[in-house]
Amino acid sequence: MCSLNCAITKLIHMETLTKSSESILFSQTFLKAWSLHLKRFNGLLDVLGDDVLAKQTAPGRNTGTYLLGHLVAVHDGMYSLLGFGQRLHPEYDAIFLKAPDAPNATYPAILTLREQWTSVNARLTEKLEEMAPHEWLSRHAAVSEADFEKEPHRNKFNVLVTRLTHLNYHWGQLVYLKEGSHE
Amino acid sequence: MCSLNCAITKLIHMETLTKSSESILFSQTFLKAWSLHLKRFNGLLDVLGDDVLAKQTAPGRNTGTYLLGHLVAVHDGMYSLLGFGQRLHPEYDAIFLKAPDAPNATYPAILTLREQWTSVNARLTEKLEEMAPHEWLSRHAAVSEADFEKEPHRNKFNVLVTRLTHLNYHWGQLVYLKEGSHE
Repeated sequence: MCSLNCAITKLIHMETLTKSSESILFSQTFLKAWSLHLKRFNGLLDVLGDDVLAKQTAPGRNTGTYLLGHLVAVHDGMYSLLGFGQRLHPEYDAIFLKAPDAPNATYPAILTLREQWTSVNARLTEKLEEMAPHEWLSRHAAVSEADFEKEPHRNKFNVLVTRLTHLNYHWGQLVYLKEGSHE
Repeated sequence: MCSLNCAITKLIHMETLTKSSESILFSQTFLKAWSLHLKRFNGLLDVLGDDVLAKQTAPGRNTGTYLLGHLVAVHDGMYSLLGFGQRLHPEYDAIFLKAPDAPNATYPAILTLREQWTSVNARLTEKLEEMAPHEWLSRHAAVSEADFEKEPHRNKFNVLVTRLTHLNYHWGQLVYLKEGSHE
């Protein structure tokens, strides 16, 4: 026969397992979607040559080079925003976030941007995989403690959702560099 | 002094609250993002006139009309996929999902598509708001019970994530109909 303490301990253990199993499923489901989207997006990058990426995605619209640099800047920025540590390329905000695409601007070589896109996402995804499910619901660096208390949905998970939708937004544009597709 | 049963009841109540508070936060955070994205996307639709939506988003690419119909078809399909009941426009799959945009095809009037886009999302979001957090992690209609047991991430939440990224993909294309923007 189990004592009161023993029963409570068992119950807490059981409930904690159930509790974390739901949070684990939410975070793992999202993480799988995150990785799958990145993998498929990289599949598109692989078939677009450097000469193609250098072109405008539509007349008068951003080039593939600019969009790739923009995505490197945004995903690199997630690293510090999510509290993982220092980002790698803070200087990219000036040219790929605050300034529009400019025909006379000097941008890093496309090969460099491709490599940075890969490394930025590799270190980011590694940290995401280490993050405990409840941390997904914690405050990110761009919201104050006071604001977070009033608006708990401004959490790390929300950053991940909006960055994934952001990737898809520009993905839909980059695909216009692929000839003869209906996508 | 609380009896064993009473202590257990209290504990279950406490733990259930904690458990559901995490699941509620995951689902509510996503639901807020879902609604905000739809609201902002509808803001774009509002500034694009019917004559503009009828144009190709880029040379040789899908028209705004086709993309709007495509989005109506996909979001309408979510209703039955998530087990909420019968969808409204199953006939749209043939023209907006299985067939590409065709210059000679006859499509519904843009005004009709705009109204359907609004009503399809209204009934969908209403159901999403009623859905209990643990239901987000349950099986959707396109995965078998056996497959779901092996791959629990193929749940309703995953459908929501992939449909939100899908919306953003085409949003990035529709924005090309807006003149003089850098988006």
